[in-house]
Amino acid sequence: MKKNIDLELYSLRHSSAHVLAAALKNLWPAIMFGIGPVIDEGFYYDIYLDNGQKLSEDDFPKIEAEMKNIISNNDPFIQYDLDFSKALDWSKKNKQKFKTELINDLIREGTTNFADLNKSEIGTFDSNKTKSGKVSFYKCGDFEDLCRGPHIQKTGDIKAFKLLKLSGAYWRGDSKNIQMQRIYGISFFSQAKLDNYITLTEQARQRDHRKLGTELDLFVFSDLVGSGLPMFTPRGTVLREQIINYSNELRLKYHFQKVFIPHITKKDLYEVSGHWAKFGDELFLVKSQETSDQLVLKPMNCPHHTRIYASKPRSYRELPIRYLETTTVYRDEKSGELGGLNRVRSITQDDSHVFCQDDLISQEIDKLLACAKELYSTVGMSLKVRLSYRDDSDNYLGSKELWEKSQQQLKTAVENNSLEFVEETGEAAFYGPKIDFMVTDALGREHQLATIQLDFVQPERFKLRFTNELGEEESPVMIHSALLGSIERFLSVYIEHTGGRFPVWNAPEQVRLITINQQKEIIDFAESISNKAFDMGLRLTVDSESESISKKIRQAELMKVPYTIVIGEKELLSSNVTPRIRSDLKDPILAKSELNIDEFLKIVSQEANLRISKSTF
Amino acid sequence: MKKNIDLELYSLRHSSAHVLAAALKNLWPAIMFGIGPVIDEGFYYDIYLDNGQKLSEDDFPKIEAEMKNIISNNDPFIQYDLDFSKALDWSKKNKQKFKTELINDLIREGTTNFADLNKSEIGTFDSNKTKSGKVSFYKCGDFEDLCRGPHIQKTGDIKAFKLLKLSGAYWRGDSKNIQMQRIYGISFFSQAKLDNYITLTEQARQRDHRKLGTELDLFVFSDLVGSGLPMFTPRGTVLREQIINYSNELRLKYHFQKVFIPHITKKDLYEVSGHWAKFGDELFLVKSQETSDQLVLKPMNCPHHTRIYASKPRSYRELPIRYLETTTVYRDEKSGELGGLNRVRSITQDDSHVFCQDDLISQEIDKLLACAKELYSTVGMSLKVRLSYRDDSDNYLGSKELWEKSQQQLKTAVENNSLEFVEETGEAAFYGPKIDFMVTDALGREHQLATIQLDFVQPERFKLRFTNELGEEESPVMIHSALLGSIERFLSVYIEHTGGRFPVWNAPEQVRLITINQQKEIIDFAESISNKAFDMGLRLTVDSESESISKKIRQAELMKVPYTIVIGEKELLSSNVTPRIRSDLKDPILAKSELNIDEFLKIVSQEANLRISKSTF
Repeated sequence: MKKNIDLELYSLRHSSAHVLAAALKNLWPAIMFGIGPVIDEGFYYDIYLDNGQKLSEDDFPKIEAEMKNIISNNDPFIQYDLDFSKALDWSKKNKQKFKTELINDLIREGTTNFADLNKSEIGTFDSNKTKSGKVSFYKCGDFEDLCRGPHIQKTGDIKAFKLLKLSGAYWRGDSKNIQMQRIYGISFFSQAKLDNYITLTEQARQRDHRKLGTELDLFVFSDLVGSGLPMFTPRGTVLREQIINYSNELRLKYHFQKVFIPHITKKDLYEVSGHWAKFGDELFLVKSQETSDQLVLKPMNCPHHTRIYASKPRSYRELPIRYLETTTVYRDEKSGELGGLNRVRSITQDDSHVFCQDDLISQEIDKLLACAKELYSTVGMSLKVRLSYRDDSDNYLGSKELWEKSQQQLKTAVENNSLEFVEETGEAAFYGPKIDFMVTDALGREHQLATIQLDFVQPERFKLRFTNELGEEESPVMIHSALLGSIERFLSVYIEHTGGRFPVWNAPEQVRLITINQQKEIIDFAESISNKAFDMGLRLTVDSESESISKKIRQAELMKVPYTIVIGEKELLSSNVTPRIRSDLKDPILAKSELNIDEFLKIVSQEANLRISKSTF
Repeated sequence: MKKNIDLELYSLRHSSAHVLAAALKNLWPAIMFGIGPVIDEGFYYDIYLDNGQKLSEDDFPKIEAEMKNIISNNDPFIQYDLDFSKALDWSKKNKQKFKTELINDLIREGTTNFADLNKSEIGTFDSNKTKSGKVSFYKCGDFEDLCRGPHIQKTGDIKAFKLLKLSGAYWRGDSKNIQMQRIYGISFFSQAKLDNYITLTEQARQRDHRKLGTELDLFVFSDLVGSGLPMFTPRGTVLREQIINYSNELRLKYHFQKVFIPHITKKDLYEVSGHWAKFGDELFLVKSQETSDQLVLKPMNCPHHTRIYASKPRSYRELPIRYLETTTVYRDEKSGELGGLNRVRSITQDDSHVFCQDDLISQEIDKLLACAKELYSTVGMSLKVRLSYRDDSDNYLGSKELWEKSQQQLKTAVENNSLEFVEETGEAAFYGPKIDFMVTDALGREHQLATIQLDFVQPERFKLRFTNELGEEESPVMIHSALLGSIERFLSVYIEHTGGRFPVWNAPEQVRLITINQQKEIIDFAESISNKAFDMGLRLTVDSESESISKKIRQAELMKVPYTIVIGEKELLSSNVTPRIRSDLKDPILAKSELNIDEFLKIVSQEANLRISKSTF
């Protein structure tokens, strides 16, 4: 049972849902109610108006006004129990047929348990459970609702609230059932907090990576290809590759070696790894029409990589063996989040696998942590880690000694890297302890991206061996790690983190030259600069269209190009330019009024090569 | 009907098959014969001995001796016809039940047509067709065989021959039928030609990329993953990436832009492209277990790339748009060639697609030809091209004017690049004319690798448009091209071409340092050189094992490392080294006896960066 918000806020929002329902009932007395839970961001109530009449967001002011009335009454929330039969009498008398269904569920189960009614509800607080054979109700003013609680004391405690949006929702989430309307809202203990929420939400909306993905021409979807299967345009591919190359470069410095595997395999591979038994029904099956092979699209890379390790006998002298591969895995998501990179069916991972002796774990983790630290520092996200250990149960494979030793090594490596960390017992995978990276973006939102996992099980299942110093056969430990995790998900976070104002090193377009007119000499001069920049590996474009300067500058701004330079007679004669700097960039060197074009290109080139970020997202 | 060898050689080998059969009949009178065609490399005859008795290659000397007897008789080949009924009498009398089946086939068809009996047979020569209602026979000495001919005059014209190998073969290639034995042989008009053939075959055997792939640790297969699905080791991945990066780099210089697409798609994409109707039963089908989507693994990239082109309106000012992507396609081959890269099920293509106006075809082809020329010159393979044009039939889509204009542009571009070329009418694809590249490897073998194809059809099927100078909607032409073609197939050719003696620029290991002993100072010195080389981007390894120097040198030779350096006291004190140079490398600079280690590393680094090849394969 996860509790993403605290009990007080939960109660506030739970009560807010009741106030919303009370207001609706005052305005539309024949309304029928479904469920009204608290969710990660606020609360909602599902409703059905007389004759299927539909509300619109235009009705929100009227509803909010009525909610304010109820809040100003400052009525208390009063709990009482009803016997099952009395509860049914209540719902029938009030013509609440959905509540009747809910009460009948409770009668069947014999206890109050609303928690499982809707998967989007976040957690429940057990403090207020109803006695068996009874149904818990809350009354507030004239409004009564069956409810497990808890609630705030009085409606007046709701200091600030807002209705957010309206959507359709099938009763019990089943498309065979009647379609109701779902009204979403949020509430806080202060107006300041609501204001802050609204500001952040608006910022997030403007930074929505789906919106920016289209505006900045980064990735596209096609109905012919299918949902959850993004295609990256030239601009998006620059961004992707810059970030992937950086992730690779960091590990190549530590002598990781690239390998290459196909995206499919016979299912035999996963029968040995154990994934087939566990996840077989979640995989994309690949049918050969020419042979009887049962193939699958790989949902992870480690089993393939073990085949390269196992392709010849290994000696302790070769270890650690460190394979690195950025490759795409496929997961059969029910439906890709439409138009977004957050949840996709084709997931590119910057994956790596280390095979080493168990006393080298700390040394190897140390390297990976150093890589992760550098990467997240460069992209301007703060990083902390969660160490997940085993508990004392028998749910784990591998000896307790190995676990103890490994967990200690993980912690040592994390401490060596001065990383903020929390330790959680019982959160390890059955095959080994792990480190999860929690990063915080510019809007203060937390994301779990990178991960490092120890694995004691696959080396055993695949019978991986090496000959140790004594000439004996021994099993290596495997260390799975991805610095970015899923590239697609990382990009969804990164695009929103930067708001599409990418630093020079990964900006798809670093410099735009705007010609002041279409005079041949001026266009030629711009093209000569463009060629020079191209040879330097810079991404510079020339806008020599016959539009007005202001329009061309506006277009460069819309594409969030870091540097824009207007090229006219003056520039042609002097070879000096005055770069316009994107507003978020702090750039003392380039902010001086005028400099030679070659000097400018050199500075931009350095900025790109050193991956300097001058942005303040 | 392809004719890979000329009529004379065809006749010689056809007659050689008869002589083989005659010799076998002399030695094993109760033998039964299947078919005995000419193939690309020689000829074979399928046979079945009394009671299924099996021959072995140990029997070859005896058979060859008997063939020599027959040749020394210098009997003429005499053609005659038999009526169907007489032909059947002949086969029954001679207890040739397979021949009986063949004659019955002819009776059903009413004419002599052996050509389709076996797919491995190369072509037929129509000159000697039998009259309807008759079966053509040839007699030579005592040996008679139904046969369409043609033949040489007398057995004595066979100046040199050799039996090559023995394999199993099902009658009519159907595993439900009886298993026969297939004896392969080859023959020539001179002993010198046979000797040359044997030498080349032995060289090819030693260079077999499957053998070298294992010896040089380049790629591996796994039964768990499946046949035709190679995995590339760190060494193989270096080779792969060096070659892929080079191919990309050549086109990036011409402003191609990288894109990235998923490996799967809904089949809808291929319904629009037309591939589904044509190749639907040859694709890997991907089944989603979570949704009802019918997905497929992509067998080509162009339809996906059209989706990126079509994601927004295009203006003539943006064209040509040039997408570049090295990505893996999947083809459901019946069975991958075991352990080899020649025919695989996961095929990586260095693919690109240009979208342009039809009057820019020549300009764009010119760029692609320049890239191909540079690439094949760098890898040391000679290049010529075949221009495939349409004929006057109606089998082609797109206007005749467009075809004429395009074909002329292809030819102009080929001539501009001073490439040797042939023109073939009627060999174009239905969607456009094309250029195929024929490369010749170090053993003189020809391979078709790269290709450039014009496409007038997909732009129409996908309704691709751009706005031209007049503000009108127009369709672009698509130009498909791959410089390497399939990376896997290219590597199979390249490994055999070089014999695994890779030039420095793509050698997985460029330099090996061998310590003369295990003294700490010497190992430390070697490691310091290694670190320096690593920072320079060189691939240098240190062998500090406690083996003898000669054994360590031998191991470096076996791995075909270009430069090997022994590090001892002398080197430690002087910082001078004496590189051992792989025997095929002509290296006047490094061949001088001694040079400073930094100077050596600098020279190797230049050699790598400039992609200099000093090899004589």
